[in-house]
Amino acid sequence: MKTVIAGALSALLLGGAVTAAYAQVSPEDQIEIRQAGFSYMAWNMGKIKAQVIDGSVEYNQQQVSAAANAIDAIANSGMGALFGPGTEKDIGDLHTRADPALFENMQDMAELAGNLGTAASNLAAKAEAGDQDEIRVAFGEVGKSCKSCHEKYRME
Amino acid sequence: MKTVIAGALSALLLGGAVTAAYAQVSPEDQIEIRQAGFSYMAWNMGKIKAQVIDGSVEYNQQQVSAAANAIDAIANSGMGALFGPGTEKDIGDLHTRADPALFENMQDMAELAGNLGTAASNLAAKAEAGDQDEIRVAFGEVGKSCKSCHEKYRME
Repeated sequence: MKTVIAGALSALLLGGAVTAAYAQVSPEDQIEIRQAGFSYMAWNMGKIKAQVIDGSVEYNQQQVSAAANAIDAIANSGMGALFGPGTEKDIGDLHTRADPALFENMQDMAELAGNLGTAASNLAAKAEAGDQDEIRVAFGEVGKSCKSCHEKYRME
Repeated sequence: MKTVIAGALSALLLGGAVTAAYAQVSPEDQIEIRQAGFSYMAWNMGKIKAQVIDGSVEYNQQQVSAAANAIDAIANSGMGALFGPGTEKDIGDLHTRADPALFENMQDMAELAGNLGTAASNLAAKAEAGDQDEIRVAFGEVGKSCKSCHEKYRME
């Protein structure tokens, strides 16, 4: 089982050093840091949504591009290292919404995470190019990718 | 005072839409999201440190580059929008380490934040190029930039 998880995580970790990477960060910190990464992506998704979907904030290409870059870089930063042993359940007061099923399906999660990384890189490219119609489509694809994992592996 | 803060924040926000951006996110969420951004940068700094400074984890260029990209993108994502009115002190149980002096010196903070953005972009470029000696120097500059702001505006 450990080998299966390590194998799947290698993809998420961008290759190798799984055990060593785990050793750097306590399970508590892994949970907090992955939540930080998701929160920071969500904030930046919100900025793009406000500017190119809702139109509630005036479109500013530089802001949208910076937001997309943050989502892209976080999505491709090897978050798999933050789902190590001991992080599949709450630790004291620290609550995780990760479904225990996630930790039994790391290959699937690695694939979903890979899809998010691809969609996020595409969004960053479109945001840099600046065509709002194309940004909207790319944003929708990132949203779908988020949702596909949330529906499977995020608890309420 | 409001105008001074808004002016300084314009730089951090990459131009305009300051009031609208504040309206999107509650003071509580601003504090939580800025802490998320700092935590996520710190995790990625730790990965680079382990691989190119301490050598406690084997160097993997792809990981170091991905980590540097995350730091770069977060540092340049317009974090100034997360230091809005009402975020200069604790809110209930939510503790902020931001010194109240920060909010009286937004021009200075904008400059420090700009320095971090520049240093982080340089680190990302060096990490992509892959020369470990150059990565070490660039990493040191990012660390100095973090520290220069912490010493002035972060409380224990």
